Amino acid sequence: MRLLFIGDIVGSPGREIVTRGVAGLVLRHQLDLVIANAENSAGGSGLTPQIYRKLVKAGVDAITLGDHVYRRKEIYSVLDSSENIVRPANLPGEARGRRWAIVEARDGTQVGICCLLGQLFMKPIDNPWVAADRVLAELPTEVKVRFVDFHAEATSEAQVMGRYLDGRVSAVLGTHTHVPTADECILPEGTAFQCDVGMTGPHDGILGRRADRVMETMLTANPTQFDVATGDVRLNGAIVDVNPETGLATAIERLCVLEKELAELESLATNS
Amino acid sequence: MRLLFIGDIVGSPGREIVTRGVAGLVLRHQLDLVIANAENSAGGSGLTPQIYRKLVKAGVDAITLGDHVYRRKEIYSVLDSSENIVRPANLPGEARGRRWAIVEARDGTQVGICCLLGQLFMKPIDNPWVAADRVLAELPTEVKVRFVDFHAEATSEAQVMGRYLDGRVSAVLGTHTHVPTADECILPEGTAFQCDVGMTGPHDGILGRRADRVMETMLTANPTQFDVATGDVRLNGAIVDVNPETGLATAIERLCVLEKELAELESLATNS
Amino acid sequence: MRLLFIGDIVGSPGREIVTRGVAGLVLRHQLDLVIANAENSAGGSGLTPQIYRKLVKAGVDAITLGDHVYRRKEIYSVLDSSENIVRPANLPGEARGRRWAIVEARDGTQVGICCLLGQLFMKPIDNPWVAADRVLAELPTEVKVRFVDFHAEATSEAQVMGRYLDGRVSAVLGTHTHVPTADECILPEGTAFQCDVGMTGPHDGILGRRADRVMETMLTANPTQFDVATGDVRLNGAIVDVNPETGLATAIERLCVLEKELAELESLATNS
Amino acid sequence: MRLLFIGDIVGSPGREIVTRGVAGLVLRHQLDLVIANAENSAGGSGLTPQIYRKLVKAGVDAITLGDHVYRRKEIYSVLDSSENIVRPANLPGEARGRRWAIVEARDGTQVGICCLLGQLFMKPIDNPWVAADRVLAELPTEVKVRFVDFHAEATSEAQVMGRYLDGRVSAVLGTHTHVPTADECILPEGTAFQCDVGMTGPHDGILGRRADRVMETMLTANPTQFDVATGDVRLNGAIVDVNPETGLATAIERLCVLEKELAELESLATNS
Ligand SMILES: [Fe+2]
Ligand SMILES: [Fe+2]
Ligand SMILES: [Fe+2]
Ligand SMILES: [Fe+2]
Ligand SMILES: [Fe+2]
Ligand SMILES: [Fe+2]
Ligand SMILES: [Fe+2]
Ligand SMILES: [Fe+2]
Repeated sequence: MRLLFIGDIVGSPGREIVTRGVAGLVLRHQLDLVIANAENSAGGSGLTPQIYRKLVKAGVDAITLGDHVYRRKEIYSVLDSSENIVRPANLPGEARGRRWAIVEARDGTQVGICCLLGQLFMKPIDNPWVAADRVLAELPTEVKVRFVDFHAEATSEAQVMGRYLDGRVSAVLGTHTHVPTADECILPEGTAFQCDVGMTGPHDGILGRRADRVMETMLTANPTQFDVATGDVRLNGAIVDVNPETGLATAIERLCVLEKELAELESLATNS
Repeated sequence: MRLLFIGDIVGSPGREIVTRGVAGLVLRHQLDLVIANAENSAGGSGLTPQIYRKLVKAGVDAITLGDHVYRRKEIYSVLDSSENIVRPANLPGEARGRRWAIVEARDGTQVGICCLLGQLFMKPIDNPWVAADRVLAELPTEVKVRFVDFHAEATSEAQVMGRYLDGRVSAVLGTHTHVPTADECILPEGTAFQCDVGMTGPHDGILGRRADRVMETMLTANPTQFDVATGDVRLNGAIVDVNPETGLATAIERLCVLEKELAELESLATNS
Repeated sequence: MRLLFIGDIVGSPGREIVTRGVAGLVLRHQLDLVIANAENSAGGSGLTPQIYRKLVKAGVDAITLGDHVYRRKEIYSVLDSSENIVRPANLPGEARGRRWAIVEARDGTQVGICCLLGQLFMKPIDNPWVAADRVLAELPTEVKVRFVDFHAEATSEAQVMGRYLDGRVSAVLGTHTHVPTADECILPEGTAFQCDVGMTGPHDGILGRRADRVMETMLTANPTQFDVATGDVRLNGAIVDVNPETGLATAIERLCVLEKELAELESLATNS
Repeated sequence: MRLLFIGDIVGSPGREIVTRGVAGLVLRHQLDLVIANAENSAGGSGLTPQIYRKLVKAGVDAITLGDHVYRRKEIYSVLDSSENIVRPANLPGEARGRRWAIVEARDGTQVGICCLLGQLFMKPIDNPWVAADRVLAELPTEVKVRFVDFHAEATSEAQVMGRYLDGRVSAVLGTHTHVPTADECILPEGTAFQCDVGMTGPHDGILGRRADRVMETMLTANPTQFDVATGDVRLNGAIVDVNPETGLATAIERLCVLEKELAELESLATNS
C-alpha cells in the first residue's frame, strides 16, 4: 500500500493547497492513505474543529499534531471524540486526546498512527522512546502498518528515533523544522525514514511566517506579529510504499507540489 | 565562476573521501574553487595542522570551521599563520584566527570567505548579523564574490541569515546539523541559499558517530565514547555558479558523492 | 552613599508594596537612592507609562528592565524621553531606549546605571561583557558610583559578571530568577555582588504567578493563563553602601520587607 | 528528628571540609541524619568508590547524586551494591543504581531518600513528577520521613516540585546551581523547601571552579581546564526538623560552615 504524509500545514495558504490538491494527488500517485501534520493550520498555530473537518473532507485520512497541539482550545472536542487524530504520545498521561489511532486505507489495510515530540532544544516533555514502545505494545498485533510522525528539532534525535524503531514500524518521518531534508531512505531493517518532510504553506517567509516581521524581531528585539506569509506556496511531504504483509517499507520519495500544479491536480480530480 | 562547498568533514572516513575525490570532482564539475568545513575532521571534533595540510594538498582551497573550532589546540599555529582558513567571525574579539579570508579561484576571481555561528539552541555567542555586517564592510569592495558558511542549528535562524544577506553575498550555505536540506535555491536578490549542505563522512551512524554508542547514551544515560562510524561514506555539499562581475549566484545544486564513485573520480584525476 | 535595589516588581501586588513602602524605607534605612527592576510590573510582564510614573512618584529614582522590556509597547514613549530608565544594554543597537542613565542621589552623588541580559538559558542576545565594557567607557569618568543589574538565569554567568566587573563598578546585583540568593558579598576588588536579589510581589505562587495555573501546565501540557498570584507579598532587594570617592562598595545587606511591615513604614513616612 | 542536607560537594576542598567537619556538626546540632549530594566530589565531577567510602566513614549517612552521576564509571559497583546511595530517579529505567534508599537515623527513624533531575535548561530527562509519584508509591507506608533532593537549574521548576510534593514528603531541597537561595521555608502543607542549598567547596571561583579559567573561556571561547578552585572553602546545607510521626517538617534553617570553624568542630568531635 502507498501512503502520503504531508508536513506541517501552515495557515490558510497551507490549508488551501491541501484542500485543493489532495484529491488529485490521490489519483496521480495512487495513494491508499493521506496523513497530515496540522499543528500550524489555524492562523499558523494550532487547529480548530472547522479546519479539522475541512481537511478530512478534502481527503486527509488522519491527522497528527506537534508542540502547538493545544494552542486553540476549541480542538479539545475533536481530540476527545474523533478517531483519526492523535496528540503527541509523550505528553503527560492526563493530556487531552488519543495517543494512537487506527485508520483504514483505501486498499483495506489497517494503519496504526502516532506522533511523538522530541526532547532536544524543545520544551520539557516525557521520554519519547518509552512512549513509542508503549504505543507499539498497545497497537493490536494484526495492525502491521505503523506510521510515526516524529516532531523534533534536532537531527541527532530524529536519527536515533529512526534507528530505535527500525524494523518495528513502517515509517518514521519528521516534522517541526519546516524544512525538508534530503536524507529520505529505507533504514537497514525496513523502516522508511526522513529527518523532516518539510512544511506545507508559503515559502517566501521564515518557516511560513512573514520574513520582514521575523527579521525585525531577530535583529532589533522588537516584538512583532508573526503573521503567516503568502507567496510561493508549496505542499511538502513524502510518499512511502509499504508491504502490508510485513509492515515494512519498500520505497520512499520526497514530494513537493507547487501552486502552479493545482489546476492540473484539480482537473484530474474533477474528471475522474 | 563555479565553487563547491563541502559540508562538515567527519573523521578519517570523511577525510578519505575528500582527499581521494576532490581532484576528480574539480575536473568532472569544472570547479574554480573548493571550500570545506573541517570542524569535525580530527577524530570527529576539531582540526589538526597535519589534517589541514592534507586537505589543502588534496585540492581544498579554503577551510571554514564551526563550534568545535578550538577542540584541538594544535590548530592555533595554523589559524595564526595561514591565509585560507577562518574561524567563526562572531567569536569574541580576542579569539584566535582570522574572521575572513580572500582566496583566488582557478579562473582568477578573488573570493571572500567567512563563517558564522548561529545563536539559537547553541552555546552563547556574539551577534551573527553584526559580525556579518562587519566582515562585509571590511572586505575590499573589489572582492565581489563572497561566501558565507552559516554554522547553525535552527532552520529559522538559517533562513533569516539568508534573507539578511540576500543580494549582499554570493552564497549563504549552512553546516552543523550534518543533514542536507532539500531547500537549495537562489533567493530573490541573487544569493544562493541552503539551510544545511550536510556532512561528509559515514552515514550509517548518528551525525557521523557510531549509532550503537549514541543510542545507548540517549536511551540509558550511560556515557559512551562517540566514536566515528565507518560505513556508507558520502561527501555532501553544494555547487554554486556565481557571476564574478556581480557576485550574485546564478545556480545552485546539491552534490552527494558516494564511496563507489571514488574509483571513477580517481581515474579521472589520474588521466587528466 | 547608600542605595537600595528592588528586584523584579511583579504585578499589582508588587507595585503596591513598593508604592506604599518606599518612602518609609528611605527613612528607616537612610537611603540616598532607590533603583528598581520593573520588567514584570504590568500584569506580570512589561511596564506601562502610567506604572512608570507611579513608581517614580512613590520614590523610585531609577528603573531597570529585563527580557520582558518591550512586552508592553506603550512604554516606548517613556523609553525614548525619560532619563532615569534603561533598557538592557546588550540588546541590538537599534533597540529602543537608553543603554545607561545617570541619576543624582539625595546626597548629591551622580550614579551611573545600566542593566544587562545574560546569554545562558535565555533567548539569543548580544555579548554582555562587550556591552558592559562599552557602557563603562561611555560613562563620564567623574561618575564613580556605577550600578549594574545583571538580569540572568544561570548562576555561573552571574558569578562571571561579578568577577569581570569587580573593582570597576560599585555593584553587580542580579535579577530574573525571582528568588533571592544567600551569597551577597563584597568581591575582592570592592564590588558588591549577589546572584539574584529576588522579586517583589506575591510569594505564594511560582515566581509570582498563580501556582495552580503554572502547575497545571507543567503537569498536563494544558496551556493556562499565568495570572499574578496574590498572597504573601514581599519586597526583596539589597542595600549597598558605596564610598562615593572611590565608587567601591563597603557593605551589602539583603532586604526582605513583608506586607505586615507596611503600616509601620507608612506611618514613618507620614510623620516625617 | 533532625537531618542535615549538604549541597554538592566539589573536589578535594569540598571533601575535606565534609570529612573534617561532619562529626562536629552532628554534635553541635544534634543531628540524627546526614545526607550529602556528592555529584562533584571527584575532581569536580562524579564520584569514586574511594571517595564514597571516605564520606560514609566521616559520618555521611546517605548520598544523592545529580547530572554528573556517571562521570566516573568506577562508581557503578558502589551504585549496584550499596544501600545508602541513590541515582536520580528519573533517569531511564535501565540506568544503573537505585531510585530510592531507606536509611535509619540515629534516633531510629527510617528515612526514605531520593533525588530527581529537573528538565528545564538541562539535558533531556524523564518526567520528574511521574518519577516522584512512583518513588513515593514504592516506599513502604511506614516510612513516613521522606527526603527529596531536586537537582535542577530553574527556580520555577524547583518551586513547582515543592508545591507538587507539599504535604507528601518531609523536605524538597534543591541542588545543582551551587548557590544557596534565601527562600528556605515550610510550605503550607508541611514540607520543608529551599530552591538550592548551595555547594560545599571553594567559594573564590565560579561554582567551585577556578575563576580565571572559566572567565577565559566565557570571554574568548578558548577552551580551558576548569580545575577546582582552592580558596574560601565553605560547607553549605540546610538543617530540617521533622516530626517522625507525621513525616512533616517543623523547621528549616540554612547552614554555612566556614573553614575557620573546622578547628572548633574537630575538637568538639574529639572531646566527645
Ligand atoms: Fe512544531
Ligand atoms: Fe510546525
Ligand atoms: Fe558544529
Ligand atoms: Fe559539525
Ligand atoms: Fe526576566
Ligand atoms: Fe522577571
Ligand atoms: Fe549538577
Ligand atoms: Fe553540582
